[in-house]
Amino acid sequence: MIEIITIGDELTSGRTVDENARFIGEALYLRGFSVSKITTVGDGLDAIAGALRNLNGATRFIIVTGGLGPTEDDKTSEAAARCFGKKLVLNQKAFSALKKLIGKANRKVSEVNKKQAVLPDGSTVISNPVGTACGFLIIEDHKHYIFLPGVPGEVRAITESFLVSYLEKECGSKNIILSKTLKVFGLWESLLQEKLANVLPDDGGVSLAYYPSFPEISLKVTGKGADENKVEMELQKAVNAVESRIGEFIYSNNGELLEEVVGRVISEKKATIAIAESCTGGLISHKITNVPGSSAYFERSFVVYSNKAKEEILNVPADIINKCGAVSEPVAKLMAEGVRKVSGTTFGLAVTGIAGPAGGTAEKPVGTVYVAVSSEEKTEVRKHGFFFNDREKIKLMTSHMALEYLRKAVLGIPIQ
Amino acid sequence: MIEIITIGDELTSGRTVDENARFIGEALYLRGFSVSKITTVGDGLDAIAGALRNLNGATRFIIVTGGLGPTEDDKTSEAAARCFGKKLVLNQKAFSALKKLIGKANRKVSEVNKKQAVLPDGSTVISNPVGTACGFLIIEDHKHYIFLPGVPGEVRAITESFLVSYLEKECGSKNIILSKTLKVFGLWESLLQEKLANVLPDDGGVSLAYYPSFPEISLKVTGKGADENKVEMELQKAVNAVESRIGEFIYSNNGELLEEVVGRVISEKKATIAIAESCTGGLISHKITNVPGSSAYFERSFVVYSNKAKEEILNVPADIINKCGAVSEPVAKLMAEGVRKVSGTTFGLAVTGIAGPAGGTAEKPVGTVYVAVSSEEKTEVRKHGFFFNDREKIKLMTSHMALEYLRKAVLGIPIQ
Repeated sequence: MIEIITIGDELTSGRTVDENARFIGEALYLRGFSVSKITTVGDGLDAIAGALRNLNGATRFIIVTGGLGPTEDDKTSEAAARCFGKKLVLNQKAFSALKKLIGKANRKVSEVNKKQAVLPDGSTVISNPVGTACGFLIIEDHKHYIFLPGVPGEVRAITESFLVSYLEKECGSKNIILSKTLKVFGLWESLLQEKLANVLPDDGGVSLAYYPSFPEISLKVTGKGADENKVEMELQKAVNAVESRIGEFIYSNNGELLEEVVGRVISEKKATIAIAESCTGGLISHKITNVPGSSAYFERSFVVYSNKAKEEILNVPADIINKCGAVSEPVAKLMAEGVRKVSGTTFGLAVTGIAGPAGGTAEKPVGTVYVAVSSEEKTEVRKHGFFFNDREKIKLMTSHMALEYLRKAVLGIPIQ
Repeated sequence: MIEIITIGDELTSGRTVDENARFIGEALYLRGFSVSKITTVGDGLDAIAGALRNLNGATRFIIVTGGLGPTEDDKTSEAAARCFGKKLVLNQKAFSALKKLIGKANRKVSEVNKKQAVLPDGSTVISNPVGTACGFLIIEDHKHYIFLPGVPGEVRAITESFLVSYLEKECGSKNIILSKTLKVFGLWESLLQEKLANVLPDDGGVSLAYYPSFPEISLKVTGKGADENKVEMELQKAVNAVESRIGEFIYSNNGELLEEVVGRVISEKKATIAIAESCTGGLISHKITNVPGSSAYFERSFVVYSNKAKEEILNVPADIINKCGAVSEPVAKLMAEGVRKVSGTTFGLAVTGIAGPAGGTAEKPVGTVYVAVSSEEKTEVRKHGFFFNDREKIKLMTSHMALEYLRKAVLGIPIQ
């Protein structure tokens, strides 16, 4: 049996949601392990020691996160030492890792930092590929206590680099787990579920899980079993079945981000892109440039918030803005064409809209958005009404829609 | 003492994050109660009964969520009955509430639904303002067990309609809780902790909590007590003490976002801003435009990823780019001046740097960044080395640094 213990006042006081327990639970579940209990306590020494003592007798693995940082609040090592009757000592391996990492940033190891290398005597260090606090392992009375830091990115990294393989090795058995993540955009979750009703056979070999992350949904298809070839075949069959129902809404079948797919298809066509953003305010460009190597195809972008900027930079005639409004089909079209011509790129992408909360009218309410993609052959514009009345959601949805249009334009897929 | 027990396979397998525990923890914390432990188990009868038995001796209130639905998986009532040695009986009050609610939807109460009114004998019904499953209360051995459904919206409703007032009544006292959130940028957590060592008296009236969210830290100062005036005074004294040590690193003492503060100070000066972004790729503009009303002071921005864009749009001379490199002090300075002049704004902000993973050299490694702010009086440039080797972190840190420089420039605070 496996238990998780998560530590932090920010968890018991509800300041933060317990993402670490969720992530570890999922990572283990997907490898065929199951977590029997999750216990969360605050930062107090007694609370942590209490949680470490209060385990189910049958539990063999205990994964503990949090309380390994440099500050006074961080008491997990002390609680573990007390619980197992061990001394706290400076662990040389942990200390050199710490020195190396801090040295890279041209800083000295302070006394406060040094605390992160002080561990219960006899601990085995678990290296942290992405942070200063290493983890450590203690085996007592046939129970394996695995202590990890609390920073979610570090928990993720150590789960992949150490935790899963350690459990697989210790348990001596390995279920074959294969999964594919299909990225779905353009369907609400309830509609997606309806469309996929009974898409998989009920034998439990392959399962579907929905992970909505506005404005898209990751659909994880997971196959489990002893025989790798069979699992792979069943998985592929399931993916095909899903694709035959909702293929037009899937932009990736290997978990890529939309901006990564866009970058890949633009690179493959040796094309270039320039962007004119109004209501998204820079978000589309931010996403595009999150992809390493994007400088090869992303030439430039303009956030043309004012009408003056639209006129001066993109050569959108003032009389058309005055006549049709800045949020209109002709202006979106001229923006996309203008940015392409001014920048000398293969494609021009433009959005103009009303992100709110102010600026809406009866005719053009908050959430009215135009997206346009221009190439030498043609310029296409579409109008959308995103009625969330939430500035950030409108920005997110609009930037996703724009990237999806760009992907289709580059691939020559008709835009609906 | 208060414990929370949350029930559901979707929690232990990581399909869902435990939003109920977070919500209840926060609601109680904000009313001066604190949760000592959260236990999460799957849907099994033994697991639930085990969690109900495995409580701290000092615990007086146990809040249980989940497993009260109509399906076979829902075993909480059965586990409670077993645990307390009670029979399961059809509770008339719960049954009439159920009939009333289901009747409203013009449906009949099915046998499956009826299960939701079958409760341990002697339970007190807790009505559910928004769903079919009522909650129930059992007091055993001076412990108050409060069973709630697992649907987050229902948990929220019953927390407000019943839970908080029940605890306040039973505990016979109402604590006053006041807090202030100071936003800190420019100090690592360990250094911040060192600087604030012993800043507060050790009497426990006021506490400090650190919530790092890269690249900044929220410092929450919380005062607790019976007398509101006294709590307010102590809190202000503590805030003053913190400010006297690290005031120069605090950009807000009421939890505002940096881009909100920047927007406020620019508006107050009736100034305007235009931005030239290179390595941040649009992130600074995205943040600025997240603030409602930013169109009043944000004129435009340019993401000048290519050298050609820097020359054509900002009039940075090609020979200076060739001589000094695009990532250099003169280019940053000319970008800030150029964007201000081209856009006709009060301030011009510019960044140029190497976000990686490629593009670094021995002389200018990945993470080398220049930030410049220009006004009619002067242009200031600073060089930074952010050695995270993580593209997104470098973008985040650089955009924060740029916004902080802009804030200081607008307020006339010297940039260090």
